[in-house]
Amino acid sequence: MQFDHAGVATDDTDTLAALYETVFDAPVAHEEVFDGLRVTFLDLGNGYFELLEPLPDAEGAIPRYLERNGPGLHHVALATDDIAAALETARGAGVDLVDETPRDGAWGHDVAFCHPESTGGVLVEFVEH
Amino acid sequence: MQFDHAGVATDDTDTLAALYETVFDAPVAHEEVFDGLRVTFLDLGNGYFELLEPLPDAEGAIPRYLERNGPGLHHVALATDDIAAALETARGAGVDLVDETPRDGAWGHDVAFCHPESTGGVLVEFVEH
Repeated sequence: MQFDHAGVATDDTDTLAALYETVFDAPVAHEEVFDGLRVTFLDLGNGYFELLEPLPDAEGAIPRYLERNGPGLHHVALATDDIAAALETARGAGVDLVDETPRDGAWGHDVAFCHPESTGGVLVEFVEH
Repeated sequence: MQFDHAGVATDDTDTLAALYETVFDAPVAHEEVFDGLRVTFLDLGNGYFELLEPLPDAEGAIPRYLERNGPGLHHVALATDDIAAALETARGAGVDLVDETPRDGAWGHDVAFCHPESTGGVLVEFVEH
């Protein structure tokens, strides 16, 4: 698998996207509203930052994360050509899955998350473009 | 800048490296002891996981992180051909720097960290190979 993106929970996409473009040379590649979140992908050439900002009054994992931890690094996503096989391998290795089967993610991708307790405290997302 | 690696604080490199190789197809690319840490790079093809495990009785940022947060995602590193210019750009954009000048990092790299308070809560490392 290859690195796909680092997911960042934020409450201020505009400021952060402008800063990351200037400082990290990572311009906006894609933006959409998905599942109660403003989602912004910033291009690193070989992957992306994914900024995740909850819409007002949205509920879910990202608002909860922001409430508990404040803004910051939320997950790492790895790209795979075969997400079903990736989940099967993970399951076989004893990894607990948040998503037993792939679901629709932002940017039209199929995604599935592994429980961080199974993967050294790191929330890992599989992405199939 | 391009993605270079995701730094992961761990207290069990052996287990995590074996799991990441199996589940993420990320074999060990490099190992060393550096600055009180066992450092292990796992190859993702377009970047790395960097596992960081404190040696017994080591002090520093990673042992402190583990004590406060437990194992997990610690930082994101971005590769640059010119780390001095990257620091100058960051400084010019108002980013507080942990390292005002590059210092020696693992694997013979020059590295410098930005204060996460300046970069949306994300600890970002610049790396020049």
